[in-house]
Amino acid sequence: MVHRRRMFQTLDPDTLPPREMYQHMISFITPRPIAWVSTVSPEGVTNLAPFSFFQGITAKPPTVLFCPVNDREGKPKDSLRNVEATGEFVVNIVDFAHAAPMNATSAPLPFGESEFDKFGIASTASTKVKPPRVATAPVALECVLHQIVRVGEGPLGGNIVIGRIVLVHIDERVRGADGLCDPAKLDTIARLGGDGYARTTERFTVVRPG
Amino acid sequence: MVHRRRMFQTLDPDTLPPREMYQHMISFITPRPIAWVSTVSPEGVTNLAPFSFFQGITAKPPTVLFCPVNDREGKPKDSLRNVEATGEFVVNIVDFAHAAPMNATSAPLPFGESEFDKFGIASTASTKVKPPRVATAPVALECVLHQIVRVGEGPLGGNIVIGRIVLVHIDERVRGADGLCDPAKLDTIARLGGDGYARTTERFTVVRPG
Repeated sequence: MVHRRRMFQTLDPDTLPPREMYQHMISFITPRPIAWVSTVSPEGVTNLAPFSFFQGITAKPPTVLFCPVNDREGKPKDSLRNVEATGEFVVNIVDFAHAAPMNATSAPLPFGESEFDKFGIASTASTKVKPPRVATAPVALECVLHQIVRVGEGPLGGNIVIGRIVLVHIDERVRGADGLCDPAKLDTIARLGGDGYARTTERFTVVRPG
Repeated sequence: MVHRRRMFQTLDPDTLPPREMYQHMISFITPRPIAWVSTVSPEGVTNLAPFSFFQGITAKPPTVLFCPVNDREGKPKDSLRNVEATGEFVVNIVDFAHAAPMNATSAPLPFGESEFDKFGIASTASTKVKPPRVATAPVALECVLHQIVRVGEGPLGGNIVIGRIVLVHIDERVRGADGLCDPAKLDTIARLGGDGYARTTERFTVVRPG
């Protein structure tokens, strides 16, 4: 690779307001997969909200994580409150067809009001956990809480919610010949910075060495 | 949204070999951003390896995580060994131009052999941490270790490496008018399942509700 002269801007997080640092982080940690997380409160009210700080961990045990950030007053998100209270959640995978309803559920609703009802999103009962899944999501992961790790506290403090996958639902229409999800059929979308999203339509293959 | 009848395949992780579950997980947790992580051993040998279980956590404190999985014998990856020994790492963000060299560094090398040297990848000294950064990476995050969370153990066991960002380097050429990274200029790539990758060239905007 030719090494040309490059000019770099240096950002020191200690000198930036956290809100500004956050805008930078979501502009370069890209593209981020989206967990559309359904939970249920102890009173039985369902909740549905998207999180783009979402990732796999390992298959042994089969685990995923998502990171709800506290709000500006330090209040935890409803999804986190519900997971803490009930120990269960479902990660619904988001394809392009669900961009609009997924985005609608990012609006803050009063605790106790269900995004499923408010936005007319069809739900289906899960098999092993109480929270329902999004009926039309191409893939849904039923999860039980493994651990919550606090990173920071108060306003904008972070929380890593680690869940063990206990059951996976895959729409037959997104499966490829090898039984795995076919990326062209799955058609997932990702978060970029600001209000930006990316599709996964321009794909390529690089064969892994040795 | 019209709710049409869908047929779902159900996967119970308890009945699947972990390697197979892993192939499923990387086929539907998509698209995954790539952390190209540089570390240095206590003896001063540099290491560079890509991880697609990578995510932000919060901006307060500014933190990221990546999840190196133990190999089939239960041995931790060199990147994890180095972070445990030195408490420092750099996350280099991967654009389309770096797809080939990034992929080359996913080959397992003997501990003590540097991917920078082996594959002729230009490095530049970091400012606050010992591991160098990739000289041509559009963005690099100097990080100090915050915490390692074990999820499982032995073969294929997971590790969540949480780092606090202490300095960010942004190539001036990828910055937009607002000072943030412009997705078109940044041109990040993502991991899909198998040997698949996606570009972030097909973008759209959805304005977040009130």
